[in-house]
Amino acid sequence: TGVAMMKFKSPPVNSLSLEFLTEFSISLEKLENNRACRGVIITSAVPKIFSSGLDITEMCGKSMEHYTEFWRAVQEMWLRLYGSSMVTVAAINGSSPAGGCLVALSCDYRIMAENPKFSIGLNEAQLGIVAPFWFKDTFVNVVGHRIAERSLQLGSLHPAPEAHRLGLVDELVPEEKLMEKAAAVMAQWLALPDHARQLTKTMMRKAVLDRLLAHREEDIKNFISFVSKESIQKSLRKYMEMLKKRKS
Amino acid sequence: TGVAMMKFKSPPVNSLSLEFLTEFSISLEKLENNRACRGVIITSAVPKIFSSGLDITEMCGKSMEHYTEFWRAVQEMWLRLYGSSMVTVAAINGSSPAGGCLVALSCDYRIMAENPKFSIGLNEAQLGIVAPFWFKDTFVNVVGHRIAERSLQLGSLHPAPEAHRLGLVDELVPEEKLMEKAAAVMAQWLALPDHARQLTKTMMRKAVLDRLLAHREEDIKNFISFVSKESIQKSLRKYMEMLKKRKS
Amino acid sequence: TGVAMMKFKSPPVNSLSLEFLTEFSISLEKLENNRACRGVIITSAVPKIFSSGLDITEMCGKSMEHYTEFWRAVQEMWLRLYGSSMVTVAAINGSSPAGGCLVALSCDYRIMAENPKFSIGLNEAQLGIVAPFWFKDTFVNVVGHRIAERSLQLGSLHPAPEAHRLGLVDELVPEEKLMEKAAAVMAQWLALPDHARQLTKTMMRKAVLDRLLAHREEDIKNFISFVSKESIQKSLRKYMEMLKKRKS
Repeated sequence: TGVAMMKFKSPPVNSLSLEFLTEFSISLEKLENNRACRGVIITSAVPKIFSSGLDITEMCGKSMEHYTEFWRAVQEMWLRLYGSSMVTVAAINGSSPAGGCLVALSCDYRIMAENPKFSIGLNEAQLGIVAPFWFKDTFVNVVGHRIAERSLQLGSLHPAPEAHRLGLVDELVPEEKLMEKAAAVMAQWLALPDHARQLTKTMMRKAVLDRLLAHREEDIKNFISFVSKESIQKSLRKYMEMLKKRKS
Repeated sequence: TGVAMMKFKSPPVNSLSLEFLTEFSISLEKLENNRACRGVIITSAVPKIFSSGLDITEMCGKSMEHYTEFWRAVQEMWLRLYGSSMVTVAAINGSSPAGGCLVALSCDYRIMAENPKFSIGLNEAQLGIVAPFWFKDTFVNVVGHRIAERSLQLGSLHPAPEAHRLGLVDELVPEEKLMEKAAAVMAQWLALPDHARQLTKTMMRKAVLDRLLAHREEDIKNFISFVSKESIQKSLRKYMEMLKKRKS
Repeated sequence: TGVAMMKFKSPPVNSLSLEFLTEFSISLEKLENNRACRGVIITSAVPKIFSSGLDITEMCGKSMEHYTEFWRAVQEMWLRLYGSSMVTVAAINGSSPAGGCLVALSCDYRIMAENPKFSIGLNEAQLGIVAPFWFKDTFVNVVGHRIAERSLQLGSLHPAPEAHRLGLVDELVPEEKLMEKAAAVMAQWLALPDHARQLTKTMMRKAVLDRLLAHREEDIKNFISFVSKESIQKSLRKYMEMLKKRKS
């Protein structure tokens, strides 16, 4: 059918580790180069979670080299996904904070299971960290400046119905109909001639993609200097401990 | 009353041919230079259609010189209409795809007959072509980035009620009340002092107008190289044949 | 509690005179430099009016030096308020035209008394004057381009329910619950770590702040040349007389 399915399967919470991001980017590159593949549906094989976002262990007590490699991998994933010439549909079958939300925002269309226990948002501020400017740009392109400003400052995680009301996701469906709906949406998008659709997508997204490309090294330095701060390391460690306790 | 009425009357579907565009621009220029004229209502004298957009016969099997002249006329019309110092109200009494939608988007206010059989949108992608960046800029200024991105990629034609929900048109009224409503809206806008209103309009639209002015020749070259492609010529011919069949 | 309360008290209508603006900026600076202060709630001590906007007497029949000093004070107030690192909540307990609306738009969150007799908007065009570009930028960041374009051209004053529908204010509450609600919202925003929230706010607002900083002298010159015009002086005098008559 020309449609690939990517199912995130990195239990317990599909954290975006260096390994995960590298595999994700390689998979996207392969699909991009495969002329038979015109679209990709991204979903999760882990119950209740789409992706929990960047893997905090990659940001704690590691070397400068590691931070550099990790952040470059985060950038690479986004550049490939947001700039993909394929039709990308996010079938969000669980919660999707921070980097998980970025993955969803970078797709062409977002369908979410209508379970109000599932939430989505760029909640970095809650952890004492700041979403990078290209997370913000992607967010503003989807929900507009006003909603992005408030949501980012509050680090809001929006329950599915609210996310839908804000335009953060395009559609809600009962969880059992999620994949069926994703396939139907994909078919609708693939009915268009690829070339015109791809050029149109590039026209819409180029300014924001170019902004990271022009400031990529600066953005890495910025991440390193931020993550190296003792205060940030402390709050990340605290957050990890809280997560561990919650699990046990 | 200081209000002019422009009724598109180029049956069967008010195609924006080179001749039509040239006359349209000259009329706008005359009204602009007429100090007695403060506003213009744009509507159609052809039943069920506001304007079907750019005349495809102008883009098929013609010379480079012709393409250049045609595209310059499209640009000219938009620069005059989007940059008009008059109050411009579109009374959309029929369908309005592609270039027809651009005409409506370039006005200050859009009132549409609430007939759900009438649709409006920048559906270029459906024909395998790409809306120029300044069509896109005009669209984004009206409906925002998210709605524009999806609508342009899908080449959507939105039925009147949906167009209203998306903000693509400002108001729906029963068709028989369209002109009355347009006159009332015009009166409301003309109650403001011209000078302040005009400077405000310029402030809002200058960035987008300047972008085409700075890239006008590039945009013409881009159009020519695109329309000269055999694949595009083929899909335009196919589309024209479909239109002919539909008519007969 | 780390929260300051600023109550505008300059009867009859809290006009933003040179003196008022200077005191406002000094107060903001003091709070900004006070590490114990993390947020400020801005409201009015004058019944039925939040602020009537810039004091027109400062713009009528004064010297160039005065106009320069006055306009610099308007800029200064906005730069401090829009760029404040504190959480700023507007508790809008009355009408708020023009500069009064700008004060509200510059806060992080706007709660308005749900009285439909109270209205808010950038109504400069009604007076024959043009809102400066940074009023416009602030407005666009809150309500988007389309709503800003129409509202600014028409110089609309939106009754509270309409202002809420347009996104100009975030929330409506009965007037007697306004302060209670403002305190609750403030507590919600202060639950976030200051540093991340402040950096996020800067990221969202820097482009618009930088634009005025880069064109500050030009903007002053522009104001002076505008306000010095005999036609503008005439329409401001007429407006002031109308206000005086209305009072008596």
